Amino acid sequence: MIAIVGVGLIGGSFALALRQAGYPGKIIGVSSPTTVRAALALGVIDEALPLAAAAAQADVVYLAQPIEKILETLDIIDALVRPWTLITDAGSTKLAIVQRAAQKIKRGRFVGGHPMAGKETRGVEAAEATLFRGRPYVLTSADPEMEGWIEKIGAKLVRLDPAEHDRWVALVSHLPQLISTALASLIDDAPETARVAGPAAADFTRLALSPYEIWRDIFSTNAAAIDGALGAFIARLEELRAALREPQSGSGLKNAFERAAQAASNLRRSQ
Amino acid sequence: MIAIVGVGLIGGSFALALRQAGYPGKIIGVSSPTTVRAALALGVIDEALPLAAAAAQADVVYLAQPIEKILETLDIIDALVRPWTLITDAGSTKLAIVQRAAQKIKRGRFVGGHPMAGKETRGVEAAEATLFRGRPYVLTSADPEMEGWIEKIGAKLVRLDPAEHDRWVALVSHLPQLISTALASLIDDAPETARVAGPAAADFTRLALSPYEIWRDIFSTNAAAIDGALGAFIARLEELRAALREPQSGSGLKNAFERAAQAASNLRRSQ
Repeated sequence: MIAIVGVGLIGGSFALALRQAGYPGKIIGVSSPTTVRAALALGVIDEALPLAAAAAQADVVYLAQPIEKILETLDIIDALVRPWTLITDAGSTKLAIVQRAAQKIKRGRFVGGHPMAGKETRGVEAAEATLFRGRPYVLTSADPEMEGWIEKIGAKLVRLDPAEHDRWVALVSHLPQLISTALASLIDDAPETARVAGPAAADFTRLALSPYEIWRDIFSTNAAAIDGALGAFIARLEELRAALREPQSGSGLKNAFERAAQAASNLRRSQ
Repeated sequence: MIAIVGVGLIGGSFALALRQAGYPGKIIGVSSPTTVRAALALGVIDEALPLAAAAAQADVVYLAQPIEKILETLDIIDALVRPWTLITDAGSTKLAIVQRAAQKIKRGRFVGGHPMAGKETRGVEAAEATLFRGRPYVLTSADPEMEGWIEKIGAKLVRLDPAEHDRWVALVSHLPQLISTALASLIDDAPETARVAGPAAADFTRLALSPYEIWRDIFSTNAAAIDGALGAFIARLEELRAALREPQSGSGLKNAFERAAQAASNLRRSQ
């Protein structure tokens, strides 16, 4: 029996993916009344229960709430589970969560997780059994049971230290979000420029449509790594700016472009 | 009769679009031997001629070369055309080209142009009759003949002062390119992060695949506007960074996100 705590896009998709992969047990949802009603109607969960009742029966507790809610649940869940229950999460930052779990989870066993998947639409209505297929799924420690399910749902297991995870996603995920927000607000200062905007402007401002609510907890739990990524990125832009100002121009920008093209091509090969 | 000078993606697509829109005259291509051979084989042009022979017969000369080549052609074309021949271009920056044309074009009449269209693949093999459909097509001065063809090929006419055009595209097109180059080179410093990279990293590094050759002339002819856009963007990132460092965090980032989401949504509505 698995308890999915927070039956949104990620929790709902994990439930559907587990079922499709042949998970034999009952799938219980713990969420708001509106959400569990929708999840039951969609067949995403078998039953809805309050946290304590679900935790008391669960072999696995899957925390798919916003990060701050995961931290709150970690504060109280240990007393509610049977000894040796697997508790895992799907939070977008890992260090704060893994540190809290290390303090609080004594009877259960905790494995931090982060499925690197998502889409623009949120909520259980958008859940899909195939959401994790081919996508990286980070675990912060070894656990044969979770590793088995990650393989069965078609995701790619990546074992990572929590601090390292947070630095990596600061660069490849949180920095692009801030770039998009900054660019959209700059275009907002000169909205007439939209008349000549092409696909690049649309692609680069898409993330700016993300609601602040899902980012607030990421910023509060990963501020130092994001600050570092922002600083390194600004320095790189300043280097390009200096090359652009060179009267003879040329080699600085050319080298930067050639190196970046190679990097972009490597990124595609490695994905 | 129209002479297309530079039969690549843009020149070739303009030829195909004109033909599909019912252009009644002959379409002559002026390009390298390899390119005209391909363009003839693909039926993109009716005939290939050297510049002087094509210009002597043309009612319209369409310059679709790289910017520096357009500038060179403007230096010599006026003596080759019949009086009152329409000369127009498709260069990605406008001020340098319009200024050069003002000095050099006396017998012909010049209208600066910039079709805001493109795709990742270059060359005449990638040319499409529908490339400009629904896309902005900038003209830097009024010309009933060009305006008529822009309408017939399904593009959206935008009349813009050349300096204003260059400032606008610095923001919505040249800045995204530099952002992509900077981000790709930063990821290159930590290539292991590709293991957790999602769609955002792929989207934001796609432009970094562009070859430097097509950007060199854009940088050399629009350096001041690009420098201004880079400076404003770096300042906006520094504001977000300061908000992120606020211990109480919160309102600064929240406001920035809400404003950016609105701007990104407006941009989509206006396109």
